[in-house]
Amino acid sequence: MFITLEGIEGSGKTSQVKKMAAFLEDGGHPYLLTREPGGTRIGRRIRQVLLDPDSNDLDPVAELLLYNADRVQHVHEVIRPALAAGKIVICDRYVDATRAYQGVARRLDVDLVETLHRLLVDNLKPDLTFLLDLPPEEGLRRAREQIDSGARSDRETRFEKEALAFHTRVREGYLRLAAGEPERFVILDAAASLEEVWQQLSTTLEKTFNQDGS
Amino acid sequence: MFITLEGIEGSGKTSQVKKMAAFLEDGGHPYLLTREPGGTRIGRRIRQVLLDPDSNDLDPVAELLLYNADRVQHVHEVIRPALAAGKIVICDRYVDATRAYQGVARRLDVDLVETLHRLLVDNLKPDLTFLLDLPPEEGLRRAREQIDSGARSDRETRFEKEALAFHTRVREGYLRLAAGEPERFVILDAAASLEEVWQQLSTTLEKTFNQDGS
Repeated sequence: MFITLEGIEGSGKTSQVKKMAAFLEDGGHPYLLTREPGGTRIGRRIRQVLLDPDSNDLDPVAELLLYNADRVQHVHEVIRPALAAGKIVICDRYVDATRAYQGVARRLDVDLVETLHRLLVDNLKPDLTFLLDLPPEEGLRRAREQIDSGARSDRETRFEKEALAFHTRVREGYLRLAAGEPERFVILDAAASLEEVWQQLSTTLEKTFNQDGS
Repeated sequence: MFITLEGIEGSGKTSQVKKMAAFLEDGGHPYLLTREPGGTRIGRRIRQVLLDPDSNDLDPVAELLLYNADRVQHVHEVIRPALAAGKIVICDRYVDATRAYQGVARRLDVDLVETLHRLLVDNLKPDLTFLLDLPPEEGLRRAREQIDSGARSDRETRFEKEALAFHTRVREGYLRLAAGEPERFVILDAAASLEEVWQQLSTTLEKTFNQDGS
């Protein structure tokens, strides 16, 4: 089972991923937590180029290719082997992020985004995707708060530096993807508290993993 | 006019590029020298990942994508603007290197290599390509000599560390490409001395640029 979490900056994916890990641990389910970009050693080098606020001259199509390079490495090295070993894979961002950020918000050719995904990772698709939805004003406020409070050690990323209109397009892109595949997406109200979001998310997890009452 | 130089490690491209620059300078032709990977600021970061001998876990398809990311950035930021400004662009390695190294030597799907080139840089093709051909044993010997003598400050690259069989496939790949497009390729015997190679190369340059006897 391949589960992804998606959402704009500051939507609280990291906190929910930790709770998901504890849930699966308690249930005795073998699992693997990972993320994009940067789920491999090579990917962490690519991630540095992608998120570095100094990479402001990065061409949008080159950006798309770097995300795909990170993904190919990640799928081949980490995701497919873990799925083959029967693990539940939980991935913080995956192809929907490329669709929303590069396809919609950067206004690249959506066909190009889809063609690359099909050609490069044989269209590997998540079984379940949680979309943590919230207004970008609130997401960016939270992300800045984390940096200012020292809860996050890294600098503001290149994406966090984008204008509000960019993040609004990302959110709209995500919502459109979710509307197009309601059987795969679960939309969560991420403006709620961490505990309330977890209540929403764990309801789906319980239905998925504890159907037999175990 | 877009001219590329291709060849295996140690084929002497760098020396010939310098002589080409002097030739164009003398003729009063506006030109631009560049190279792949690493013809842009972003590209130099990608180049580090690609050539680093510690990147031995790099997936072959991810490698192909990193070369394409470097190329897209380079074509958009450097090559197309220079051609539009009427400059002669001389590029040390371009898409034929991807075909020979990733397509042939790494045995990737040749269609994938061609599809990416067509989709990503609108199939931008060199007008003239010099292939510096020599046996890989000799090329690798020269590359090691340059490192040992301190003429080159960098370490042996990830490609130079590949087995002789790999470099033999690269050479064969290049020769096959040249055979398929004889109107674009000029094959030079790079086992000859630097001066002799330049004699061969400059004959073509003179025909191309000094047809009017200027």
